[in-house]
Amino acid sequence: MSQINTRIVLASRPHGEPTAENFRVEQAPLPVPGPGQVLLRNRWLSLDPYMRGRMDEGPSYSPPVAIGAVMEGRTVAEVVESNHTGLADGDLVLAPAGGWQSYTVADASALDRKLDPAAGVAPSTALGVYGMPGFTAYAGLHEIGRPRAGETLVVAAASGPVGATVVQLAKMQDVRAVAIAGGQEKCRYLREELGADAVIDHRADDFAEQLRAAVPDGIDVYFENVGGKVFDAVLPLLNDFARIPVCGTIATYNRRGELPPGPDRLPALMNQILRQRLTVRGFIQRDFIKLYPQFLREMGEWLRAGRIRYREDVVEGLQNAPQALIGLLQGRNFGKLLVKLD
Amino acid sequence: MSQINTRIVLASRPHGEPTAENFRVEQAPLPVPGPGQVLLRNRWLSLDPYMRGRMDEGPSYSPPVAIGAVMEGRTVAEVVESNHTGLADGDLVLAPAGGWQSYTVADASALDRKLDPAAGVAPSTALGVYGMPGFTAYAGLHEIGRPRAGETLVVAAASGPVGATVVQLAKMQDVRAVAIAGGQEKCRYLREELGADAVIDHRADDFAEQLRAAVPDGIDVYFENVGGKVFDAVLPLLNDFARIPVCGTIATYNRRGELPPGPDRLPALMNQILRQRLTVRGFIQRDFIKLYPQFLREMGEWLRAGRIRYREDVVEGLQNAPQALIGLLQGRNFGKLLVKLD
Repeated sequence: MSQINTRIVLASRPHGEPTAENFRVEQAPLPVPGPGQVLLRNRWLSLDPYMRGRMDEGPSYSPPVAIGAVMEGRTVAEVVESNHTGLADGDLVLAPAGGWQSYTVADASALDRKLDPAAGVAPSTALGVYGMPGFTAYAGLHEIGRPRAGETLVVAAASGPVGATVVQLAKMQDVRAVAIAGGQEKCRYLREELGADAVIDHRADDFAEQLRAAVPDGIDVYFENVGGKVFDAVLPLLNDFARIPVCGTIATYNRRGELPPGPDRLPALMNQILRQRLTVRGFIQRDFIKLYPQFLREMGEWLRAGRIRYREDVVEGLQNAPQALIGLLQGRNFGKLLVKLD
Repeated sequence: MSQINTRIVLASRPHGEPTAENFRVEQAPLPVPGPGQVLLRNRWLSLDPYMRGRMDEGPSYSPPVAIGAVMEGRTVAEVVESNHTGLADGDLVLAPAGGWQSYTVADASALDRKLDPAAGVAPSTALGVYGMPGFTAYAGLHEIGRPRAGETLVVAAASGPVGATVVQLAKMQDVRAVAIAGGQEKCRYLREELGADAVIDHRADDFAEQLRAAVPDGIDVYFENVGGKVFDAVLPLLNDFARIPVCGTIATYNRRGELPPGPDRLPALMNQILRQRLTVRGFIQRDFIKLYPQFLREMGEWLRAGRIRYREDVVEGLQNAPQALIGLLQGRNFGKLLVKLD
C-alpha cells in the first residue's frame, strides 16, 4: 500500500467549458481513519454531468466544491483499514463521496452499501445502472413520468447510463421509446441492442423533422436531461397531459447564468403548460430515496436476468479524469463514464 | 314570456384587447325544445377570463367561438318549458353553455345541476364560489398545490372568485396566505374581510420588494392565475419543492401569440425547475371532475356556516356584457362578475 494519496483538486472555477487548467494534481499523506471509520482505496470513480455544477459558485441543490478542495465523486472502493466491526479489509463498498483521489477516509455508517462481487452484478455498476444514474431513470419514470402502455416517451442522451435505462424501462412497460443520441455508433447501439423503437441523431440537419416523424401520436413523456435544442424540438410535439421529469439540462451547464438572446419564450411556455395541462417537475434521485430498496431489488433481478443491459466507458488512471469529464460535457463518452484507478 | 331571443354574437376576432366592435347584439326567434329538452330563460350569466381565449382562433383546451356564433357562457337559468319529466317550469338550473342570450334550449341530461333556492346558498353562487371558479381553487389546491400548515402561499387576482377562495381555503389549513390585488379597496377587503396574512397592491412601484418582505420564509405554493410581472416577482422567492398550479395567465391573454422581447428566460426557468425541484402543472377544473361531489358537499357546508365568504360584482342587462368582459380583462371587476338578465 502506497503511503501517498494522489488527489485532484479544483484549481479554479471554469468560465464556460472547463479546461485542464481548472484542475490540479496533488500528493498528500495517507489519511488516518478515526474510531468508526475506514480507510478506503478507491477502485472506480464515477464521472457525471452534475459535477459541472459543483465547479460553479451559486445556488444549486448541493454546495459547490471549494477552490483547492478535492473534486467530489462517488467511488467503488476497497476497505484497506477498518475501525468498524461490520467491515473488513478487502470488502468492497459504494462510497457516496470518495472523491477524485486514490484513498479516502469515511465513516462506516455513511457508506451507501457493501457490494457483493458474488451477487452476479459487477461492482462497477453500483456507479451506473445499479446506482445513482439507474435510480435516476427509475425514480423519474416511477414518480413523475408514469408512462402507460401504448404511450410515447422521448429521451435524449439516450446512450448514457440514465437515458439507456429510461429506454429499457419504457420498453418493459410496452411504451414506445424514442431515443436521441449523437453519432451513428450510439444510434446503432440504441436501436439494435437496447430495442428503441426509433432513434434520432441530434447532429442531423433535419433533427426536428425526424423527431416529428418518429412520434406520429405525439409525446406523452419527455424525460429531460439535456435541454437546449432537443427541448425546443419536443415542445410543439407534446400531447395534452404530457409529463416532463426534469433531471438535467446538460446543454446549458457550460453557460450557466447567461441568458440567450430573445424573444422571451417563458410566457409562451407557461401558456402551453396551462393550455395542455402539462406537468413539468424537477427532481434528483435522492428526493425519492424511499424507493431505493425497491429499485435495488428489482434492478438486481433484471440485471442478473439480462433484461436490462448497460455499457461502460472506462478511462484508465486518475490523472485522466479531468479530460474525461471535459469530454463527458461534450457528449464524447459512450455509456457510463468510469475512471479505473491504478 | 317574450317571443324574441336577444343574443350577443362574436362579430370579429379581437387584436389585443377586445373592443365593443367585436360583439354584436341580435334578435332571433325563440328556440323550440325537442324531446328530452328544456327551454331555459337565462337569469344570471357568468363572465370569466377564459372567454378571452374563446374569442381567438388556434389551439386551446376548447374550440373557439365561431364568428357569428353566440358567445359562450355558463348561466343560472329558469325552466320555462320542459319536455323532460325531471324538470318543471320554474325550476332553477346551472346551464354549462347557456350563452350570452336571454333564452336557450338544452338537453336536460346536459345540465350541470338543479339548484335549490331553499338550500341556504344563493343560486347565483353556482357561477362563482359554489361553481366553476370555486372548484378551480379547490381542485388546484387539493391536487397540485397541496399546502401544508405553516407553509406560505401566494395568489394574485386575489379578490376574484378563484383567488378569494384560494385565500380562504389556505387560511382554513393554517397556511400563510399572501394576497395580491389591484387597488386599496380590494386590498382592504382581502385583509379585513377574508383574513389574508399580507396583502400587496400590484400597482405599487415597489411591488416586488413588498412581495419579498411579505414572504420571509419564501413561497411554497404559488397559485398562478395571472402570469406577467407577478410571476416574475415570485420566481426568485420560491422555496425548494414549491408547487405552482397554473390555472390562468390573464396578464397575457390580450397578447396571445406575440413573444415579448428577450433575453430568453425559458432555459433559466427549466434550470430553476431542476435546481429547486419545482412542480409546475397546468390544469382546468374539469380535469379533476371526480372531486366535484366532494367539493359541493364541503363548500355547501362552509357557505352555510359562513366559513367561506364571497363577493359578487353584478352588471344589469345583457347588453352590458361586452363592456363588462372588457373591464374584467383589465381587472376592473371586484368579486365574481355576473350579468343579471332582465
